[in-house]
Formats: sequence, structure tokens, C-alpha cells
Amino acid sequence: MSELADGPVRLGMVDAPGQPTPSDALAELYRGFERELLVPLWTEIGDLMPARPRSKAVPHLWRWDALLKLADQAGHLVPVGRGGERRAIALANPSLGGRPFATPTLWAAIQYLMPGEDAPEHRHTQHAFRFVVEGSGVWTVVGRDPVPMNRGDFLPQAGWNWHAHHNAADHPMAWIDGLDIPFQYQTEAQFFEPGRDTIGEDERGTPARSRSERLWGHPGLRPLSGPAARSGSPLLRYAWDDTDRALADQLALAEEGFPGVVEPGHAAVRYSNPATAGDVLPTIRAEMHRIRPGSETAPRRQTGSAVYQVFDGSGRVTVGDRSWSVGRGDLFVVPSWVAFSAVSQASASDSDSGALDLFTFSDAPVFEALGLDRTQTEGIEA
Amino acid sequence: MSELADGPVRLGMVDAPGQPTPSDALAELYRGFERELLVPLWTEIGDLMPARPRSKAVPHLWRWDALLKLADQAGHLVPVGRGGERRAIALANPSLGGRPFATPTLWAAIQYLMPGEDAPEHRHTQHAFRFVVEGSGVWTVVGRDPVPMNRGDFLPQAGWNWHAHHNAADHPMAWIDGLDIPFQYQTEAQFFEPGRDTIGEDERGTPARSRSERLWGHPGLRPLSGPAARSGSPLLRYAWDDTDRALADQLALAEEGFPGVVEPGHAAVRYSNPATAGDVLPTIRAEMHRIRPGSETAPRRQTGSAVYQVFDGSGRVTVGDRSWSVGRGDLFVVPSWVAFSAVSQASASDSDSGALDLFTFSDAPVFEALGLDRTQTEGIEA
Amino acid sequence: MSELADGPVRLGMVDAPGQPTPSDALAELYRGFERELLVPLWTEIGDLMPARPRSKAVPHLWRWDALLKLADQAGHLVPVGRGGERRAIALANPSLGGRPFATPTLWAAIQYLMPGEDAPEHRHTQHAFRFVVEGSGVWTVVGRDPVPMNRGDFLPQAGWNWHAHHNAADHPMAWIDGLDIPFQYQTEAQFFEPGRDTIGEDERGTPARSRSERLWGHPGLRPLSGPAARSGSPLLRYAWDDTDRALADQLALAEEGFPGVVEPGHAAVRYSNPATAGDVLPTIRAEMHRIRPGSETAPRRQTGSAVYQVFDGSGRVTVGDRSWSVGRGDLFVVPSWVAFSAVSQASASDSDSGALDLFTFSDAPVFEALGLDRTQTEGIEA
Amino acid sequence: MSELADGPVRLGMVDAPGQPTPSDALAELYRGFERELLVPLWTEIGDLMPARPRSKAVPHLWRWDALLKLADQAGHLVPVGRGGERRAIALANPSLGGRPFATPTLWAAIQYLMPGEDAPEHRHTQHAFRFVVEGSGVWTVVGRDPVPMNRGDFLPQAGWNWHAHHNAADHPMAWIDGLDIPFQYQTEAQFFEPGRDTIGEDERGTPARSRSERLWGHPGLRPLSGPAARSGSPLLRYAWDDTDRALADQLALAEEGFPGVVEPGHAAVRYSNPATAGDVLPTIRAEMHRIRPGSETAPRRQTGSAVYQVFDGSGRVTVGDRSWSVGRGDLFVVPSWVAFSAVSQASASDSDSGALDLFTFSDAPVFEALGLDRTQTEGIEA
Repeated sequence: MSELADGPVRLGMVDAPGQPTPSDALAELYRGFERELLVPLWTEIGDLMPARPRSKAVPHLWRWDALLKLADQAGHLVPVGRGGERRAIALANPSLGGRPFATPTLWAAIQYLMPGEDAPEHRHTQHAFRFVVEGSGVWTVVGRDPVPMNRGDFLPQAGWNWHAHHNAADHPMAWIDGLDIPFQYQTEAQFFEPGRDTIGEDERGTPARSRSERLWGHPGLRPLSGPAARSGSPLLRYAWDDTDRALADQLALAEEGFPGVVEPGHAAVRYSNPATAGDVLPTIRAEMHRIRPGSETAPRRQTGSAVYQVFDGSGRVTVGDRSWSVGRGDLFVVPSWVAFSAVSQASASDSDSGALDLFTFSDAPVFEALGLDRTQTEGIEA
Repeated sequence: MSELADGPVRLGMVDAPGQPTPSDALAELYRGFERELLVPLWTEIGDLMPARPRSKAVPHLWRWDALLKLADQAGHLVPVGRGGERRAIALANPSLGGRPFATPTLWAAIQYLMPGEDAPEHRHTQHAFRFVVEGSGVWTVVGRDPVPMNRGDFLPQAGWNWHAHHNAADHPMAWIDGLDIPFQYQTEAQFFEPGRDTIGEDERGTPARSRSERLWGHPGLRPLSGPAARSGSPLLRYAWDDTDRALADQLALAEEGFPGVVEPGHAAVRYSNPATAGDVLPTIRAEMHRIRPGSETAPRRQTGSAVYQVFDGSGRVTVGDRSWSVGRGDLFVVPSWVAFSAVSQASASDSDSGALDLFTFSDAPVFEALGLDRTQTEGIEA
Repeated sequence: MSELADGPVRLGMVDAPGQPTPSDALAELYRGFERELLVPLWTEIGDLMPARPRSKAVPHLWRWDALLKLADQAGHLVPVGRGGERRAIALANPSLGGRPFATPTLWAAIQYLMPGEDAPEHRHTQHAFRFVVEGSGVWTVVGRDPVPMNRGDFLPQAGWNWHAHHNAADHPMAWIDGLDIPFQYQTEAQFFEPGRDTIGEDERGTPARSRSERLWGHPGLRPLSGPAARSGSPLLRYAWDDTDRALADQLALAEEGFPGVVEPGHAAVRYSNPATAGDVLPTIRAEMHRIRPGSETAPRRQTGSAVYQVFDGSGRVTVGDRSWSVGRGDLFVVPSWVAFSAVSQASASDSDSGALDLFTFSDAPVFEALGLDRTQTEGIEA
Repeated sequence: MSELADGPVRLGMVDAPGQPTPSDALAELYRGFERELLVPLWTEIGDLMPARPRSKAVPHLWRWDALLKLADQAGHLVPVGRGGERRAIALANPSLGGRPFATPTLWAAIQYLMPGEDAPEHRHTQHAFRFVVEGSGVWTVVGRDPVPMNRGDFLPQAGWNWHAHHNAADHPMAWIDGLDIPFQYQTEAQFFEPGRDTIGEDERGTPARSRSERLWGHPGLRPLSGPAARSGSPLLRYAWDDTDRALADQLALAEEGFPGVVEPGHAAVRYSNPATAGDVLPTIRAEMHRIRPGSETAPRRQTGSAVYQVFDGSGRVTVGDRSWSVGRGDLFVVPSWVAFSAVSQASASDSDSGALDLFTFSDAPVFEALGLDRTQTEGIEA
């Protein structure tokens, strides 16, 4: 889990396998390397080419209550406007050097908007989504289309789309933002452009459905015509009712003896782009999992990292050698090639279904596009 | 519109451009060709390589009343069972030599099932769908999954899936079948296998939704796990309510001043495979169009042929130099590169909306897969 | 192997399985069908939906000597010019009604050009190629790029490219043309446009390599820039030396104990589009097979049809229940789902290698694009 | 060009646009963030979401003479064997913290093998290639296939292929290795496995062509059968003769007045996978450019980074605000969105052609697979 050292500090290592015998000549050679801005492979290979991924990130849990409390404080102290752009507070993985990176590729933040506030319009190449664990009242305006945000809604927003937020309610609202900021930061692909400081009056509507849903939100049906293609999903909101029904249907099918669930007691859907049937964003996969009370998922690891948020229910999750009891809103990260499993444990305070609903997003599309994906479930590598 | 003659009858043609001067030697040469089973290009090129497609099919209209009456007679005279397999009666384009081909690539038939009847299980490589213009009571059992059939429902069924029908009602039911039988007959790709003569008791259920819809019928959501992949759409029913809502949404968006419709007063959706976002069947495209009363579509022609059925409303359709007033259930064909347009004309007997709803299917996926698609709208070639 | 009858003649069949009992009412019903241009499935299903493809075509062999002799006669009697366009003489499968169709989807013809003759420029959507079994002296000018034609060369020419031929030699030259004329005739996708009657003086050059080869004929290397994309392969000539070397390399690898050949003694290459790595034409696959003396290929059948020409050597080929001894230039057809195998039998008159070299083209890309491909080798279905 | 600081140091910034007014409450809030492992967006957005990519890497040049001299010293001091695995010495971009990363995604190293030495077999998910700027005598054994390495040869080797090197000559040999080590290090996709310590005697052959070339090295021809598919190109060597000829052909075409070159005096080929026509490796693009004496390329920038090596000739290259005179073997990096141009300046010591031949590799396939590619040539954004 250690990070590559900042500099050629390993050059002095002599005990590692395959290292040359120390000598004055060797020391002189190493000084030559340093002078010419060179680093040998043989001192670094253990870190750079490990037998399997050893993530620079560690498993970690953030409690929703703590996040929400700090976000609310920020709501009263930090204005939202051009320059800072958003009142978003990001998870900083403890072993990623204090950077606001939940994992080496993924950004996860709580965003908070006070009653009547607007977050100014901008666009960027980073792919983003919003997921609402509680509350309502904010509309995200994407390409001038106001998209409602209610509990359980998932709002993808592919790179380079203009977007702004406005809180039409008389109370603050929080949600989480997921982006590929660290990935684009590492690969250096980013462009950013500020938009209008204020959205138009006609964009301040608070419709129950966005226009994108009216065009693209009908199962198995695509419009023959419509707005110009955006990169990423043209469907800007995946409403909770649909997701809930899809999960309930899978569990009911299983009870009737038919296929549908991932494993016993474990239903799951992937948010998909209705124009391509692929992932909802080019660099981010998002899914909702439902685990029935008493059920447990098989430990599974995969290349690439993921962030989870408990949407509903209670349970216990295990990430590598860490394990936590979790409840609504709690967020945790699963680093690359670290095994993850969850068990659903209904508690008195849970909602009716009692199931553990886990929202998750990952960088899997990057790995699959490049042929770097590997998965292992309970010792069976796929 | 003429068909290639059966035999080298054109060999005697002397007036056509580019033909050699008649002589005894030429006659002897042509006899040599005939003897050796050869045919020259220069006598055939006009038919084989026309400046633009000249379809062997002609525009034609079949009235639903006439079809239904004959189908009902067949219901009383013709049993359904192994060998004949289905009580299906196909449209035979008047210029395709009496063959049961609506167009050179498409089959369209009315199928009829008496109360309590079963159509035996079989499977074939031909891709098929059912579309219900009126009635209910029959379930199509695909891969042991009973799929309801109600007015407006579209049921795709990709090649090589086992399927049977059973009429659970106390009245007969009719619907249309669309298949790529002529295409597979010409290219010689067909396989056929009879299945069980009787479906299982557990497959005689009459659920309101098929299992396929419970897994795949949620907008923008795909199951992580599920039944083994079929060729073609895993969604076996596109229920009318969804289609109707999607069309109404498009027209409402247009009225509000937003994009969405194909052209003024003309909404349309394409049935799509939720696992690929492509066409619902590898060789067949299916769509539903809604034209508001008083609206007219721009004349449009394209390579490949189509069959239309009026689902609701009344209007006038023009196909090349033919034009008909049409009403519910009427079927007509649009041959390759023949212009088509429709105008919606509400009549007293129409349903509330008054719009002209046109169901259509075509061979467009074949043309697109091979790069042979061309479209021309009002003189603008795309 | 029978063809669908031209008309509803089967309506009177009473002995076939699944047919209704004859009666006056049934006869009246059948008259009603005929009047309304309808045909029932139950009388036609045996032909339309057979258990496996039963080709309308039959295996047949054309001897090169006979073709060449007639082509030469045509060279003296039939001019080449606008209208007739080409002095091409097509194989007419004996069971396809006298039409110039080698198979239901493929056209194969011998083309013949006298010394100094030009074939006028035109373009068409039909995909085409030339293959040269003997001779040289003609250049095909594709998009103003003169492409040489020598023994063993393969020249693909995707649809809608302008092309002309000119014979720069002092002797006649023959070659074969392969096109998808029957396929486009059935699906009605054709467009045709005449070009200039005479090609420019600068296009009369007789370079040893076409410009297309200079840009695209380097293994594993593609130009960063170049002429605008054509549909189909940008490489307009696959010179024999390359093909010969590739086949020799495969057989040599096999002798050294390494993989490479299709089966013992049987090497084969597929002509591929260097810009896509797919088939050289959207609707036509072309390959060259080399069978060492004494070797025999496993009987293999597949959906879709093929035409073969013996390029070199001698042997015996078996197509379904037909079998012929064949030599240089002989052409034969393999209908859909009819088994094919070949044995190489060196004869005294053969060239040095003694191997049987078989050039073949088929409609396989159509079947693969639509998921209709099936293959069976010695009873093992793939 | 600065790197994100290691820690929340920006939290105290108060003058940046969009920052909240300092106060005790704000300080307390920021302490809360730190305690809970959170970082706000508003203090980091300038670094994370710049208006356009600001690379963490800088342009830099490494002289071949200096590299070669140090590599030779290492040849005498550092053994090659299991553990260290390879005598490879990597370029360390001066602003990437001393890590052996030429750019944030690319590794570039000189590898050196003494006479008779073997580098042990291993495999890894990192994609790799070798490029030979001078010398010969080493064979890279990939999947037991010995592949020769001569001046100008390019040897791709996709991830997870077993490979070893052996120097069959009586003199040392150097070449460059390119890999996606930094990219896989950041995304954490790496697997590594040691192989046999010694390759078999039968793999010590020194054939003039690898078996891969005999199967896949024929232009536009693919074997019907062959070894099991590897990830990445099945062609393991792109011999210099082919590359040289392709570049010469492009320049000759331009002189004759035909298209083919990228811009006047600038020819270029891309190494491509003959099985897919795509890039030769899933994460790495490789190309060879030839610039005629006196010609200059238009300044061009693109997302993603590249490494260049001068293969032949002399010239002057400009990377952002840096500019160097370069000669054979010199290596330099072009960071993301930094403009690059080159001018060819023949010098007395150059080879016959006098052209400047530039080999380059980049991470472009990553950007294109994810839709993150952007290019700008002389102010024209594509």
C-alpha cells in the first residue's frame, strides 16, 4: 500500500533480489543516473511491476452524519459563486497524500446548496454524476434542461455539457457528486469553461421530469429525432421509482425460482446509456445493489477502484482487512484488487423493505475499454 | 418494376444501347453461351444495374376487414398443429409471382387463434415479431416465458428461440406476424426445428408481464445477471402504454417549443434492444409513428422496403404513384426507393387523440450493416 | 433443390403433413386468399422454412477452355462501349432460371478486352473485384489510379468507386469479375452512374504498382494521411508475390512443426482491408487456398454460397454429391450448406510447386454481419 | 506545470477568486475537514480543473551519447537476472518527483545487453515495445518465437505475453523500451509473473524473420488459422525495410502531385495491428515520421503525452517554449497540450537521404478509447 518514494531513494538498496554489489563504481554510476535524470528499473521494479495491484489507496469509511454536519457549516460560511464554483467537499483517501482523491481515479464529494442559492454554470471534460441519498428541492440544469433531484435519483452528466444547480426549496439540500477528476488529472485531459453567471428564467422551472426523460426515459424505445448527441447518456435522470422496481422484480423472480439475481438474495442493476447500452459515462460505471436481510455477497475483487454509499438499510461491509457496520449515507472506498463483501442486517430503524441498498460507482469502463479488467470471486479468477 | 425474365430472352434484343450488330456469327455465339450456361452482361445490365433501385414489388394495400374475415373462415376450416405449424396468412405482393412475400425481403401475415387453441412449439433462424392491432387473450411462450399480447403491444422474437402460442380466452384473436422469411429464403440461411407438441402446465400462466419485462423493461437499467443471452432483444414485449406515452411526450415537447419530433406534428419511436441499443432484431427494424390531425409527413424514400399497418386513426397515405385513404388495421407496402408520405385526417369514428398512429417494419438493419442504406427526403439525399 | 413455384400451386396439396381436409368450403377459402393476394403459411412452410438450407442453386462446373473460347469469339463480335459497358460473360447456375447468377447472391463472369480497347468509366453500388488467372496487359483505373493486373493479382473495388479498364498490350486479356449483383438485385440496393467515356491521358500510365499500393501495401503500416476514405479496402491490388509468399510461409512453418495452416497440408489466406482488418468488401469475402499434393481438405459446409476458381495445379473437388477433376481456370460453385472438399493431385503438366491453388469468394460477410453464419466441418457444427 | 501539493496547503489561501472570507469559524471548519479527511473543491479547483491541460511534466531532452555511455557502464557493473529482471535505465521527467516516468503515462528506457547475456523470461500486463536506433545481435523471444532486432525495427509486445531477450552477438547491444508503466501504476492494473530462468535451446535460434512475421507480415493478407490470439498485435516485428519503403513512397507520391503525405515534406506511418487495424498496443500508439531537409511541421498539440527519438538525420525541434538541435538517438518528451514542431536540417554527417526520421510513441489510444482526445494544429482545433 506504500507509495512510490519521491526520488531515487531506493538506489542505495542492496539487499533486494537482483541488486548489484555495492562498490564505488556503482555509486558513481548511480550519481551519473541522477545527474542525467535517469532511474534504473532494477531498483524500482518491485513497486512499479508488482505481482498484483497494490493500491496506493486504503479502504476507508466516512460517516454521513459527520459529512453532513461539516457541509452545513460550510453552507453558512462559504459562498457559492464563480471561482470556487461549487460548495463541494471531497473525500481524501488517507494514503493519497492529502489530495482530494477518494481513489487514484475517482472523486467523491458531498455538495450542499442553501435555500434559493444557485451554483454558476460551467462545463468541463470531467465526467460527473449526482446521486441523492436524501432530500429534494434542487434542480440541475443541464444544457438548459432542468432535471429534478429526489431521494434515490441518479443524474449522469457527461463531460463538456453546460450545467448549473439551483435550490428552489426553502431548506438546504445535500447530495453526492462523483467525477473522474483524479483520472483526468493524472492523464492530463482536462478542459474547463465558465458559462453564464445566472441561468435564464425559463430554466428555473421545477418540472417533475426533465425533457431528457420525456425523450429517452421509455424502456426499449428511442426517439427517431431529438437534441444533438451529447457525449455520454442522453438520459439525465434515472428516477428512483424505476430503480426500486427493477430491484424488487429481480428478487421476486428469484423467489419464484427464475434467474435474475446476481447471487442468492443479491439483486443489482447497472445504469446504462439508452443510446449505446454501454456504461452511463465513458469513464464511470454506476450501479445499485440490493441485498436482502440476512444475505451476504461473495467476496469479490477486481482491477480498478470503487466508491460505495449506503442508500438504505444497515449491514456490515468488509473491504480487505477492514470491516464496518454501516447505515444510510455512509461512504467507503474499495481500492484496486481489494476484496469486498457485504452482509445485510436489518435494524429496527430501517425502512420497510429492510434490505441493504448500496449505490456504487467505479472506473471499470476505463479498464474494460483498454482490456485491463480482471475479476476474482471467491478465488475464481475470471 | 418488371422482374428479370426467366431465361436469356433478351439475347435477341438489338435496339438497346450498346448491343452488337446482329449476325449469324452473333447468333452462333449466343447459342454457345446458352449451351455453356453463360449469360452476357451487356444484354442484362439495364435490369441488373439500374440507375436507381426499381423494385420488383409494387405498392399495394390490404384492407384489415377483408383479412380478418378470411382469417376467421380459416379459423373454422384449418386446424393448427404440427406440420402446418401456424394459422398464418401472408400478404403476397402482386408483382412477386404469387409468392407469399410482402416485399422482396419481408413477410407479413395475419395469424389467427381460436379459443383454447395452441400453436405448437418450434424454432427457426428467421427473425420474427408479433404486433397486436386489436384484441387480447393470447400469450406467446418464448423460451418458456409467457408473454402477454394486448392491443398495441410489440413482441420481438429473435431467431432460434423456442416459441409457441396459446389462446387462454373464450374468443378468437388475430394479430400480425412480421418475419425476414423472404430474405433468408433468398440468401438461404434457414434452419428449423420442431419443439414440444404441448407446452408445460407451468407455461400456461397468464401473467400481466413476462419475466423478460421484469428483467429488462426498466428504462436505462440493465440487470447485472440474468438468463443466457439470446440473439436479438432480451425484452420480449414492448407494452403499448410505454409506446403511447413516449409519443405523447414528443408531441408535448414540441408544443412547448423543444426538440423531439421528427418533423412538425410527427412523433416517432424506434423499438430498440436494451442490451445493445441497436435494432430490436438483426434484420428487422420496427417503429411506431404518430401524426397529429392535419399534419403531413415529408415524402421520403430509402433503399430497402417496409410494411406499414395503421394502428389507430385515419388518413391518406401516398406510396409512389398510389394513394389510399386508410383506417385501423389496413396494411400496405413501400417498395425500395419509392417515396412515402402520410397525412392524418381525423374522422368521426376515431379514438380520442385523433392522431394517425402507423406501425411499420423494414429491412433497414440489413442495409445499414452492409453500408447499402441511402435515404432521400424531399429531394435532399442523405 | 427445387425452387418455390411461381404462384399458389400448392394450395391444392392435401397429403402434406398439417394440411386441412379438402372441402368445398376450403376451396372457397383458398379462392378468397387468391382474390385478396394472400398465401397461407401452412402450404408453403416446407419450402420457406426447411430444416436446413436447401439451395435453389446446384453445384456446377464451368471449364476455363470453353469460357475462354467463347470470350474470344465475343471479343471479335461484340464491341465494348457505353450501354453494354463491359464484355463480361456470366456463369448462370443451371437451376436459377437462366439468370446470370452463379449463386443466389454472387455474380461471376469472365471479362475480355482486346488489344488497345477501353471499357468506359462508370460506378455502381455493387461491390466488385477482379482476379487474374492468366495473362497481363490490362490496367484497371480506379478513382484515376491505374492498377496493374497480372497473373495471381486480386483487385477489390468497393461500391461507388469510379472505374474503367484499358488494355495497353498487343494481345487480348481475360480475367474474372466477382460481384454481389444478385444480392443487390434481390435486396434492391442498386445505384449506377456512367462516368467519362474516355479516361485521361495521365490515367493511361502503366505503372508497376498502383498509388493505392504505395500508400497501403506495407505490412502493418498505415499512412497518417491519404486520399479520402472509400467504402471498402483502400488497397486496390493484392499482388501475387505477396499471396504466394504468405502461403509458402504457412506450409514451411507447418513443416517445422509450428502452427499456421488450416489443417495438414492446407494453407490459406484471406484478403483483408488494411484500414479495418475486416473483409476486403462489405458483402464479399475472398481467399486463396493452397493444398499440397496428396493432401485433402475436410468436408465443410456453411450457410451462404461460394464460387471457386482453380488458380494452379490439379485435383479433384467434391461439392455435395458431385465430383470433378479440375485444372487451371476451371470454375465451380458451392451452394449454401452443401459440403465441399478438395484433394490435390499433381499432374505432369503442373507447375513446380505442384500444389492445388484455389481462389474462392463468398457472401460470408453478409451472413456474419447479420449473425446468420453457421459452419459444419465433418459433422462438427460451429 | 506545478504539481498538486501534498496536503491541504491551499486551505489558507484567501486571495484566490471565489474564496470565503477568513474567520475563526472558517479556520475551525477547515480543521474539521482535515480531521475528517475531507478537502474542499473551492481551494483546489484551479489545479484540478484547469481551463486546459497543464502538464505535471515538462519538455526535456536526453542526449543519446550520455545514455549510451551510462548504459555501457551499467553493462559492466550491474548483472541481469531474476529480481532486477532487466538492465533498463529509464528517463525521469525532471518535474515528476524523481520517478522513472518520462511522462505521467509513459515509460521510456534504454536497455543494454552484454554479449552472450540473457534477460530472464517474465510476463506482465504492462504493454511494451522495443525500438532499435542502432546495433543488432539480440533476439527477443516472445511466446517462444525468436524475433530479430535490427536498426529501425519496431517490436510491439502486448501485455501478458511471455518474453525474454538473448544477445547472440559478440558485442553489447542497446535499444529503447517503451511501456505504459506509469499509466498502469496510476490506475493500478498491474500483474506480473516470472517465467523460466533460461529459455529452451530451440528458442536460441537466430532466424532472419520471426514466425509471427511469416504468418502476419504480408500486406492485406491474414492467415485463416494460426496461434491463439494474443492481446495486441500478432505481428511481433515491423522491419525497417518496410517502414523505410512506406515513407519513401509517400514522399515520391507527393512529388508526383498525388496525396499521401501529412503536410508538404512530411511523411508518416502508424504501426498498426493487422488483426484489428487499430493501434499496435491497447494503450500505446507508435509512428515513424520522415521530414525532408528544409521542411518544417506545423505546430500541433494534443491531449496526452508523447516521447520522441531521432532515428536518423538532424534538425531542430520545438516543444512549447523549449527548442533543441537534435541528432541520432536523442530522446525528448512532449507533455499534454504542449505544441510540438520539427524542422529538418541536413548536416554533413547525415546518411544519404538526409531526412529527419522521428520515431514517436504516445498514449493516444487511451484518450481515443475514452473520448478524451483533442488536437489543435496551428490554432485550428479538431
